[in-house]
Amino acid sequence: MRITTVGLDADDTLWHNETIFRLTQARFRDLMAEVAAPEVLDERLAAVERRNLALYGYGVKGFTLSLIETAMELTGGEPPGRIISDILASGREMLAHPVEPLPGVEHALAELSDGYRLVLITKGDLLHQEQKLAGSGLGDLFAAVEIVSEKDASTYARVFTRHGTGAAEAVMAGNSLRSDVLPALEAGAFAAHIPYAVTWAHELAEPPVGHPSFAELASIADLPGWVRGLG
Amino acid sequence: MRITTVGLDADDTLWHNETIFRLTQARFRDLMAEVAAPEVLDERLAAVERRNLALYGYGVKGFTLSLIETAMELTGGEPPGRIISDILASGREMLAHPVEPLPGVEHALAELSDGYRLVLITKGDLLHQEQKLAGSGLGDLFAAVEIVSEKDASTYARVFTRHGTGAAEAVMAGNSLRSDVLPALEAGAFAAHIPYAVTWAHELAEPPVGHPSFAELASIADLPGWVRGLG
Repeated sequence: MRITTVGLDADDTLWHNETIFRLTQARFRDLMAEVAAPEVLDERLAAVERRNLALYGYGVKGFTLSLIETAMELTGGEPPGRIISDILASGREMLAHPVEPLPGVEHALAELSDGYRLVLITKGDLLHQEQKLAGSGLGDLFAAVEIVSEKDASTYARVFTRHGTGAAEAVMAGNSLRSDVLPALEAGAFAAHIPYAVTWAHELAEPPVGHPSFAELASIADLPGWVRGLG
Repeated sequence: MRITTVGLDADDTLWHNETIFRLTQARFRDLMAEVAAPEVLDERLAAVERRNLALYGYGVKGFTLSLIETAMELTGGEPPGRIISDILASGREMLAHPVEPLPGVEHALAELSDGYRLVLITKGDLLHQEQKLAGSGLGDLFAAVEIVSEKDASTYARVFTRHGTGAAEAVMAGNSLRSDVLPALEAGAFAAHIPYAVTWAHELAEPPVGHPSFAELASIADLPGWVRGLG
C-alpha cells in the first residue's frame, strides 16, 4: 500500500471561513439590537438557514439571503432600509474578503506536493471558491480542484478515482468530521481531522476514535509526517 | 479525423432558463410599478447586475440579491417590506422551478449518446445546476458534467481533454455564441449554435459565419445529423 493522493478541504482548513461568517453574524446582532435579543436572533437565523439549506446550498450568497429573511421575520416584515442595506454590504464584503492561508499551511502543502498529488475538495459557491484559491496564492500547489455540492462517500470515491489512484491510496484532511473525515473513511480512504477554532453546528459529529485509518492532528504542520508514515 | 465527444450547454439549450429570469423580471416590474417606470427599472437592474457580476457570478441567488439592491436604489433605500418579501419568494420559486427538457432534446441526446461521449458544460450555481440536471431526467445520458465559473477557450480545452480525446475531436453545442460557440472554436473544437427564443444581452455576439468548424442549427433535432456528417 502506498499513498499517492492527498485531498484537502479548503474553508477553515487552508484559510479562515467560519470566523468571517461569525463576525458577520455579530455585526448583524448589533444591527438588530433594538429589534431582537442576540439569542433570539441567533436561533431564528439558524432556523432560516436550516430551512434554506437544500435550496441555497453553502456559501455567502445563500447566507446573505438568509440574513435578509431573518430580518424580515423579526421586524414583522418591515425592516428599516438601513438593515437591508447593511446586510447587502456585509455579503459583498464577505465575497471580497482577502484570503490568507492559516499558519503552517503553505509550508505543509509545499512539503506534501513534493511526493503526492494534492487535490482541493470543497463545498460552497463555485465562483467564490475559485476566487479564494486564486487569492490565497496556493493554486499552483494543487494538481486538481473539485468544488462539489455535497461531500459524501461517493464524492470521495469519484474524486480520488478521477484525480488519483483510488480512495484506498488517498488521504483526506480537513476540519470537519462530518464532511471531510467520516465520508472519506467510508469511501475507503485515510482521513485526518485538523480542528479549527470554530465549527459550524451543522458540521459537528463524533470523532471515529480507534478507526485504523483515522488520525486527529493538532495542526496541518503534522500532516506531512503522518501521511509519510502511512507507507 | 473523428468526433468522439459532444459538449452541451444546459440553460436555454436543454431547458428554459432565460424565460424564467424574464418572467421574474416582469413580476418585479409589476411589484415596483408605483415606484419606477418599467424602462427605468430594467436599466437600473441591468446596471446593478453588471456591477455585481464579478462578485456574484451567474445564477439565481446573485440575481435575487441584485433585485433587492435595485429595489433599494429605486426607493431611496426604504423599500416596503412586501417588495423584499416578494423578491425573496421569487428567488425561491426560481430555484424550485420544475425542469422540463425543451422540445426535441431527449430524442437528440438519446441519439447522440449512442456513438459519442456527452458532456454537460454549464455555468451557474453548482447546486442549482445539479438539481436541474437531476430534475430533467437527462442525467443518465451524460458521461460527465462540468459546472464551470467561466466558459473560455482554456475551459473547453481542459474539459475536452479530461472527458474526451481533446478539443479537435469534440463538438460544442449551445445557444450562446459568446459562451458556447466562439471560445470552443478558439480551443480548436467544432461548434454548433442552436439559438433560443431569448438571449441575455450579456451573451450577445457576432456569429462566426464562414468558419469551417461552425454551424448554425435551427433546432437541437439537427445536431445528431450534423455531428455524424463531420466524420
